[in-house]
Amino acid sequence: MKKTEILALLKEHRPDFVSGEEICKKMGVSRTAVWKHIQALREEGYLIDAAPRTGYRLVKIPDRLYGQEIADGLNTEFLGRTVYYYDCIDSTNREARALASGGAPHGTLVVAEEQTGGKGRQGKGWFSPRGMGIWCSLVLRPGIAPAEASPVTLLTAVAVASAVEKTAGVSPGIKWPNDILVDGRKLCGILTEMSAEMERINFLVVGAGINVNIPPESFPAEVRDIATSLRAAKGGEVSRAALLRQYLREYEHYYRVWLDVGFKPVLEEWKKRSVTLNRPVRVSTSRESWEGWAEDVDLSGSLILRLPDGTRQRFTAGEVTLRPGDNGPGTGD
Amino acid sequence: MKKTEILALLKEHRPDFVSGEEICKKMGVSRTAVWKHIQALREEGYLIDAAPRTGYRLVKIPDRLYGQEIADGLNTEFLGRTVYYYDCIDSTNREARALASGGAPHGTLVVAEEQTGGKGRQGKGWFSPRGMGIWCSLVLRPGIAPAEASPVTLLTAVAVASAVEKTAGVSPGIKWPNDILVDGRKLCGILTEMSAEMERINFLVVGAGINVNIPPESFPAEVRDIATSLRAAKGGEVSRAALLRQYLREYEHYYRVWLDVGFKPVLEEWKKRSVTLNRPVRVSTSRESWEGWAEDVDLSGSLILRLPDGTRQRFTAGEVTLRPGDNGPGTGD
Repeated sequence: MKKTEILALLKEHRPDFVSGEEICKKMGVSRTAVWKHIQALREEGYLIDAAPRTGYRLVKIPDRLYGQEIADGLNTEFLGRTVYYYDCIDSTNREARALASGGAPHGTLVVAEEQTGGKGRQGKGWFSPRGMGIWCSLVLRPGIAPAEASPVTLLTAVAVASAVEKTAGVSPGIKWPNDILVDGRKLCGILTEMSAEMERINFLVVGAGINVNIPPESFPAEVRDIATSLRAAKGGEVSRAALLRQYLREYEHYYRVWLDVGFKPVLEEWKKRSVTLNRPVRVSTSRESWEGWAEDVDLSGSLILRLPDGTRQRFTAGEVTLRPGDNGPGTGD
Repeated sequence: MKKTEILALLKEHRPDFVSGEEICKKMGVSRTAVWKHIQALREEGYLIDAAPRTGYRLVKIPDRLYGQEIADGLNTEFLGRTVYYYDCIDSTNREARALASGGAPHGTLVVAEEQTGGKGRQGKGWFSPRGMGIWCSLVLRPGIAPAEASPVTLLTAVAVASAVEKTAGVSPGIKWPNDILVDGRKLCGILTEMSAEMERINFLVVGAGINVNIPPESFPAEVRDIATSLRAAKGGEVSRAALLRQYLREYEHYYRVWLDVGFKPVLEEWKKRSVTLNRPVRVSTSRESWEGWAEDVDLSGSLILRLPDGTRQRFTAGEVTLRPGDNGPGTGD
């Protein structure tokens, strides 16, 4: 697209001016066309100076997750190479599922400035205010069976945590399976959905809601005590575009490690950040609740709980509560 | 519905007449209304005699899989209590997925006389000629995780085989995971699809295509040598409605055993009918192909192959080819 190419040219010359003539020549378009594209960019929020006989220069890039901003220096092979951007949408996961059903390619990214019906796990809502977070979903098509997919949950947590560390300098902990915590509060929610035959996944949709620049006081009352944002943790704003790009890079890296080498190296990264292991926890499933010592997470991503009677219980799903005390395995009440 | 009630009354008195007066009284409707319902039933293919001053009698029930016929004596608790019947549809699995997404209850049955785009596994087609088979899909909502769902594939095979035995007196073999074979040819195809979060299945759609009354010569050339029908195996027609009802009963029974007691008793039924175990086989996955001795199927439904070097390989998915020879484990070529 000519508009994107003109933007790239302006970025390249930043902070200098580029003459209208040069733009015309390089793009092979008329002065009038250049002017129209500049206007369109301004409407998208780009601040562009125009000076007679000098040309144009880019002054400011808007804080938007436009496809062209995500693509800028992204350097991934498949993740985020196709981007669906929405100003406002009900749910990026719902949209990604619909796009995937219609054939959207492996690696497709769906991102929105705002979600009006953001979804968390088990049908819970997800607070997704305009321009303050990364509300996005990835379409993945690993050629594996549904039973082999559980590691993707932990992998996503590693990708988010790793991107947050590198971009914002904040080191989150991970609570099994994939809650991203800073100071004990939730920074990011992850919702993974799948469509599959029993033998083979048709597609996965991995949704992530990262609370980036939400002022702590603007969280709804019911989550104010349990949610946090990077802004709250760091005391300053973080570039959403930079964080999203890093998330895509980290994700692609760990995704490839998982499918090419195996889950072990990814699990090791997960364990480094774990706040669940080697401590007393409670695991609640829909049916019952267990207390014990969080001993390990295995290569399928399951949590291994050592019960007070010394036996071990394996969990593929469940809600973990961290219990106080640090009194060693086998002695938890 | 009055029409269904009138049909039930006629069935109850079969082969005798029921007077128009009795029908009017029992149903609380007028003579004209009774006449209209009788006409509607006749249009559905029911053969109903009418004699002046004697009344009506049911002579013949059409060979159709109407909801009212399936319900007749069905006696299940949840399976097939909600029926969507189609004269002709593209694919019952596609329709069941759409209905399930819209909230169709656990146990919903979708059935069609004919499929124009019947689907087998891995996007293959399924020959579904009008009125000659059972082309149906079930919506199931087990409260489990996707990783726990693999037994449902084998369970479906057991339900089909068991229903075929009881209804048609033909004993099919099961090739892992769920090919139903008679004389080495395929009698039934099963396609299980799921929509899920990583922690919890939203719904399963279990499609079954059972070749009931297809004359062997009418199979398309490309499957004529590998497909069969009950009619071909038995040398006579089988009641599709009776077989479908029995399938629903068997399915509900084994489904409950699985979720209430565990998969072991279901697996035992599967093993009784297995043509895969204790023989040399080839297992082909999308990536590679393995030859070995089919040693066991475990409680997750995986096939355990003993390789010529004595090691064991576990398969959650794959295409099995039965190899000639019966020369014991470890000595396969």
